[in-house]
Amino acid sequence: MTGLRFDVGDAVLAAAAWSRLAEPADAVAGALVRTIGAGSALRWLDASQDQAARGVAELVERGVVAPAAAPALVRGVDRWRPRLAVLDPARELRVLARLGGRVVLPGSPGWPAGLDDLGAEAPFCLWVRGRSVDAGGAAIVGARASTEYGNQVASDLATGLADRGVVVVSGGAYGIDAAAHRGALAAGGASVAVLAGGVDRLYPAGNARLLEALCDAGAVTSEVPPGSVPSRVRFLQRNRLIAALTVATVVVEAAWRSGALSTAGRAAELLRPVGAVPGPVTSAASAGCHRLLREQGAVCVTDAAEVAELVGAAGEHLPAARPDEHRPGDGLAERERRVFEALPLRRGAGTAALSRAAGLGTQDTMAAAGTLELAGLAVRDLDGWRRVNNPPGRNGSEVR
Amino acid sequence: MTGLRFDVGDAVLAAAAWSRLAEPADAVAGALVRTIGAGSALRWLDASQDQAARGVAELVERGVVAPAAAPALVRGVDRWRPRLAVLDPARELRVLARLGGRVVLPGSPGWPAGLDDLGAEAPFCLWVRGRSVDAGGAAIVGARASTEYGNQVASDLATGLADRGVVVVSGGAYGIDAAAHRGALAAGGASVAVLAGGVDRLYPAGNARLLEALCDAGAVTSEVPPGSVPSRVRFLQRNRLIAALTVATVVVEAAWRSGALSTAGRAAELLRPVGAVPGPVTSAASAGCHRLLREQGAVCVTDAAEVAELVGAAGEHLPAARPDEHRPGDGLAERERRVFEALPLRRGAGTAALSRAAGLGTQDTMAAAGTLELAGLAVRDLDGWRRVNNPPGRNGSEVR
Repeated sequence: MTGLRFDVGDAVLAAAAWSRLAEPADAVAGALVRTIGAGSALRWLDASQDQAARGVAELVERGVVAPAAAPALVRGVDRWRPRLAVLDPARELRVLARLGGRVVLPGSPGWPAGLDDLGAEAPFCLWVRGRSVDAGGAAIVGARASTEYGNQVASDLATGLADRGVVVVSGGAYGIDAAAHRGALAAGGASVAVLAGGVDRLYPAGNARLLEALCDAGAVTSEVPPGSVPSRVRFLQRNRLIAALTVATVVVEAAWRSGALSTAGRAAELLRPVGAVPGPVTSAASAGCHRLLREQGAVCVTDAAEVAELVGAAGEHLPAARPDEHRPGDGLAERERRVFEALPLRRGAGTAALSRAAGLGTQDTMAAAGTLELAGLAVRDLDGWRRVNNPPGRNGSEVR
Repeated sequence: MTGLRFDVGDAVLAAAAWSRLAEPADAVAGALVRTIGAGSALRWLDASQDQAARGVAELVERGVVAPAAAPALVRGVDRWRPRLAVLDPARELRVLARLGGRVVLPGSPGWPAGLDDLGAEAPFCLWVRGRSVDAGGAAIVGARASTEYGNQVASDLATGLADRGVVVVSGGAYGIDAAAHRGALAAGGASVAVLAGGVDRLYPAGNARLLEALCDAGAVTSEVPPGSVPSRVRFLQRNRLIAALTVATVVVEAAWRSGALSTAGRAAELLRPVGAVPGPVTSAASAGCHRLLREQGAVCVTDAAEVAELVGAAGEHLPAARPDEHRPGDGLAERERRVFEALPLRRGAGTAALSRAAGLGTQDTMAAAGTLELAGLAVRDLDGWRRVNNPPGRNGSEVR
């Protein structure tokens, strides 16, 4: 027993401590903390660290832990112990406070309820700089190695979402992530970056100014304390937060194999809708999106209205109907359309010839010709019926 | 009764006559001909044309036609009668013969069985120039107003299909249709064009040479006799033939509203799989494809292997697995991956530091480091463990 150099009864300090002790998505730590509380779990760990088996046996005896879970908990103690001696959450909180940030605890105001869907893999707390991270919204994610096309689409989608009041959530990477944040900011909207490392390290450095801007207009958040490095494992686990924080996840560009696909996979596991933006089949940067469409049942999304529909909010988010081009003959019944098609353009045709051309009886042909005349599409001259040359809405001679 | 100027007992002449009398997909004519035969139907029509109600009543009395169908049949007589007087199938067959063509009758050798799925809307016969039209294959269709991207993809798909021995079927239009045929021809494959007008009119004129080439290397076919004009209604009905002739339909490019979408719709009605090629969301020429993906459950296809998979033929058609890029650390178990991530690149780290960095117990950390050493990914120096600088398969420092 080394003795903990902070007040484990302080809920914020205790949660902060666990966010340092355990790696993201450590379900054993998550289950322990959710069962006996972060402070009690810390006291128990401190007392049991050199005699893990005995400490676990006591929890089993007290009925806190199922016997079958005991081995996993013993291994957990072995994982967490190396960091126990160097634990100093108060210092990490001071670093965060100097940056104007705060820690948000599960169930407290500002905690995104969607994170609870992660169960035992939910974070112990969120380290937040900026405004609210509890806004639902849409994840707009994708490759760092994006194309100009992908960047433009990501930015346009985010702008359109911001215009609709939908918060954009992404990582902090170059490429699609950055383009999405920029698009949201450009429209005066809110955008949230979820980092794999500590929020004191605005990584990558080239995006530091963008991420600083998010601290004003949106938020930057992480589940690991200040000072934590963004390792590859943490990047992958970070993706589960992006998926869980949001109502829907959209992948804008992704290579055949890409971290953005893991975010989509997490979203699907959480039963959140997944959208994918198509691109040229000749672009390797769209191959992952096409894979999602082809293999994972992702929804094809091409504009912000369609993303908003995926988010499934109020009617104002529904995409407007596309304006269909209008052609003469549109909206005609089958009989009238056939006669219209059969009408000569110049010299009129008699009823018999028109009937043959239309493949209709003479009575039907005459009735249809009359209807077309009333609609301003046909006219009768000395030779018979012909088309009106410039009917209302005429725009060409498309025949297909 | 005018008297028919040809031998209605000749099956080819009788079918050819009906293909002139009735417009494509005239289900009443189709049902009548399939019930009593093309020749008998002609004799009956000739006898009944001026007294349709009595003729129909006789058929009802004989139990050939259900009483409920009588009014539709009376209207049918009214539709077919105007063309009866000018009927001359023998002349149309002579035109076809001069072009080296032939008529293929339902159920005879060379008749594509897939057409029978159209039921009463199946054609009475096919007018064919060239080789077999009974080859299954894939429909590759799309907009006339295609882009360079769409043309290239259509051509590449057709080439890849031809390489796999899959016949390409399309219309005869400019744009995607033509690009698909060219791609198939370039690979020495077979390609079939289904025309909306007669096969004597290689429409549009700008594609006449291409369509002539198909008469040698593939086929050009139509359900309407030589001399028939390609009206808009016939174009739309022609699409059902493309859908029914093939095992699967793929739309390469299509505007939000496009005839190619009707082919896809027909294919879906016939329970044939429909594929759509994605493109840039900024391209109006891909909007119809995205609509199919989004609203109609079309399969996203990006190369010939995926189209061949849609055609669902033998194993040789299945797409090859994509070569995944290999990164150091790939394929490692979670524990080994964590330690690998935690390994310093230059100066080695002791087990305690490595345990903290990896978030693992010391025993697990040491075991994992040993595994990594054996895999050539880690090395132990005087200071402790570090990464091997150029491990097998190393290709960068992707961290996501």
